[in-house]
Amino acid sequence: MNAPAHTESLRRPVPAACLDALRERFADRLSVAEAVREHHGRDESPYPPMLPDAVVFAQSTEEVAAVARLCNEHRVPLIPYGAGSSIEGHLLAIQGGISIDLSQMNRLLVVNAEDLTATAQAGVTRKQLNEEIRDTGLFFPIDPGADASLGGMAATRASGTNAVRYGTMRENVVSLTVVTADGRIVRTASRARKSSAGYDLTRIFVGSEGTLGIITEVTVRLYPQPEAVSAAICNFPSLNDAVQSVIEIIQMGVPVARVEFMDEAAVRSVNLHSKLTLRETPLLVFEFHGSPAGVQEQAEIVQGITADHGGMDFEWAERPEDRSRLWAARHAAYFAGLQLRPGCRASTTDVCVPISRLADCVRETVDELDRASFPYTIVGHVGDGNFHVLMLLDPDNQAQWRESETINHNLVRRAIAADGTCTGEHGIGLHKMQFMAEEHGEDALALMRSLKHAFDPNNILNPGKIINW
Amino acid sequence: MNAPAHTESLRRPVPAACLDALRERFADRLSVAEAVREHHGRDESPYPPMLPDAVVFAQSTEEVAAVARLCNEHRVPLIPYGAGSSIEGHLLAIQGGISIDLSQMNRLLVVNAEDLTATAQAGVTRKQLNEEIRDTGLFFPIDPGADASLGGMAATRASGTNAVRYGTMRENVVSLTVVTADGRIVRTASRARKSSAGYDLTRIFVGSEGTLGIITEVTVRLYPQPEAVSAAICNFPSLNDAVQSVIEIIQMGVPVARVEFMDEAAVRSVNLHSKLTLRETPLLVFEFHGSPAGVQEQAEIVQGITADHGGMDFEWAERPEDRSRLWAARHAAYFAGLQLRPGCRASTTDVCVPISRLADCVRETVDELDRASFPYTIVGHVGDGNFHVLMLLDPDNQAQWRESETINHNLVRRAIAADGTCTGEHGIGLHKMQFMAEEHGEDALALMRSLKHAFDPNNILNPGKIINW
Repeated sequence: MNAPAHTESLRRPVPAACLDALRERFADRLSVAEAVREHHGRDESPYPPMLPDAVVFAQSTEEVAAVARLCNEHRVPLIPYGAGSSIEGHLLAIQGGISIDLSQMNRLLVVNAEDLTATAQAGVTRKQLNEEIRDTGLFFPIDPGADASLGGMAATRASGTNAVRYGTMRENVVSLTVVTADGRIVRTASRARKSSAGYDLTRIFVGSEGTLGIITEVTVRLYPQPEAVSAAICNFPSLNDAVQSVIEIIQMGVPVARVEFMDEAAVRSVNLHSKLTLRETPLLVFEFHGSPAGVQEQAEIVQGITADHGGMDFEWAERPEDRSRLWAARHAAYFAGLQLRPGCRASTTDVCVPISRLADCVRETVDELDRASFPYTIVGHVGDGNFHVLMLLDPDNQAQWRESETINHNLVRRAIAADGTCTGEHGIGLHKMQFMAEEHGEDALALMRSLKHAFDPNNILNPGKIINW
Repeated sequence: MNAPAHTESLRRPVPAACLDALRERFADRLSVAEAVREHHGRDESPYPPMLPDAVVFAQSTEEVAAVARLCNEHRVPLIPYGAGSSIEGHLLAIQGGISIDLSQMNRLLVVNAEDLTATAQAGVTRKQLNEEIRDTGLFFPIDPGADASLGGMAATRASGTNAVRYGTMRENVVSLTVVTADGRIVRTASRARKSSAGYDLTRIFVGSEGTLGIITEVTVRLYPQPEAVSAAICNFPSLNDAVQSVIEIIQMGVPVARVEFMDEAAVRSVNLHSKLTLRETPLLVFEFHGSPAGVQEQAEIVQGITADHGGMDFEWAERPEDRSRLWAARHAAYFAGLQLRPGCRASTTDVCVPISRLADCVRETVDELDRASFPYTIVGHVGDGNFHVLMLLDPDNQAQWRESETINHNLVRRAIAADGTCTGEHGIGLHKMQFMAEEHGEDALALMRSLKHAFDPNNILNPGKIINW
């Protein structure tokens, strides 16, 4: 697959004075080695790598600020790097410059258990956070599948399987420490649960994909570990029956913690990959959190609704290890899908629509996919109206890549026509910039552009992502 | 009480050409009558009115856009007016100009019951919305007490008694239609439940108090009416016991729908005002939403916790009319407080702190208030760490006004030192601008100012509010 054709011509030179100053400060934490640059010039997107000129491994907010000041002075692009798990080309150094790797900023700074918040450096991953707070009886629910860094999750406004109950990073970031383009250090908010004190700087940086500032610390909300957890699988005769069940469950206000859809091909792939024996029909995987009585009550309501739509008996995963196996399999759906077609690369869609439009949107998409020249799987965070098509493509077949891009574009058009969005949780990066005007309109884009110009007047922060300068 | 001393000198002239053009377009929906201007140059704050030069009654987004274009061309201040219920001087025309009254934009545009959203013109009030959607089985939970307009609630990031469970306007605005300073019409987001498609324009305008754009339509989240609702009152021997109970309840993750604190004086005032017979001690008022079994379970947990802190027996308000009377009394606490000192005016504080710091913050504040020369009451949305002191002042006594300002400032400093905010839900307006630098720091203010400059380069939108130009 080809990176955008214009990229090489956009590379900006990195002055020797800038590299010298970085080398002096960071010594062997500055690297220009090909392998290191290659590792930092790619993400999980289908694009080939676009290498930064150098990589700096930062260990503190002050170091990030120093790098920003230097890059701003020399007009050098600066791209923050967390865990490398983004999938829309966010990390590609299309204009060259410096990749600033925050993975060594991996300390959990403070847990305020009484307030249900924790503050961590940006390089802490969600799994690390949950590991370190386990003894507090609290947990951090946002779970995008990959073990992403908290800084990266904030920067892409990530969510995942738990969002239907607990919200996304938009709702769960309390405050951020951010380094601005000119190297100032700003804390975006206090730890108060709510505030009306001026513009919402926190929400400005959440989802800004490194283009407005570099997130170095993240304060997130935590939740009490539920007293009882149970998970169940329910098979359906058709995709539509599964989706209609979810619509009714959400409309009833049942506080399901997770409700995930898999189509038949996705089920087949996880059976193969994770050695499970799930019945290969469209299915929903549920998780319920609450008191023992509350969980039972939720499950009974949900069973009633699914039965009305042809859902077969719930298959319960009562033991923690069974639930872990089930969710591990669900999270492996991406890699499982890839194995359905050995040697393939995947292109993933990410639309999100109002739930009343979900069934139509999925059905029309399936109609189109069934005529495609490549196999596919569908998984979805259907409680939010968000689903992903994994299109399994021959990496050497440009025609197939174009075909997938057309299908993705048609799907995005369908989602926008249904008052939805081109991306529920993956972000814009490079790959979805083409859809921004269709989704938001030129006047909204002009506002976003004016914000970018105001916060980053020299266009050094992850330039060429989200919107054109 | 005095308005800021500098204000008269800041008035900008409104060119005759601008007024003529408005008169031509709006005819008798443009008013320069003293009484109309006076009504629109005040809010519920203790400031004396500062009159706009004229008032326009808009009936559509396009009309608002036309007014904005005209004002922008002539550099004339433009102040949006909803229900007039703000309380920090938001609406005062300190630089003169045009007040644009949106109260005739009061149509509920569409209810998407399946998606749990509704879209209304900005002038629709929260009570009107709930009245009009009653038959759908859904409700809109945000309840700031006053029957504010949805546009005004979005503009001040309002919340109130239900926020502990349902969140604030930050979490419950799905999308906005906004008129920009130069008269473009922008929709900030789709109706998808989540999106990662670029900068969060919605959250930029929520809480911007009319300084970045004029909100003309609001899409909000709705919730299924709970199957069961119950409310209860619990008396405590001391303020600290009540607050400690709330802290434990929140930490247990009990999904209380409301938990409101009143001090002894507040209870006495609502008894007098609303002819109730509440026992006059510090108390908490609870409301529980859920299934019948769920509500009972929540109530049992809460009763156990309150009993551990000396809470006396729950007094239940089971019947809807009893609950209505109770919440009406709570909402009347402001006016009830005023009646404790006939002829007084009130100054209200609004800090919000992390809940672990709430008890100390309230206690230190009470120590200071007990030495003051005026009476006071305290009510609080304590589940969020937010409480209000109603200071009952002699309007002719400037020394008392200064004393109250000192106490408020000390309280704000205490809240900021506790990692809290000067305003949980009332907004900055004029009255709290002095605290912005203390709370956010100069670098964060510089970012906010650059946002204001980018979105409103001629400083016409509610100028002189939130931050200095």
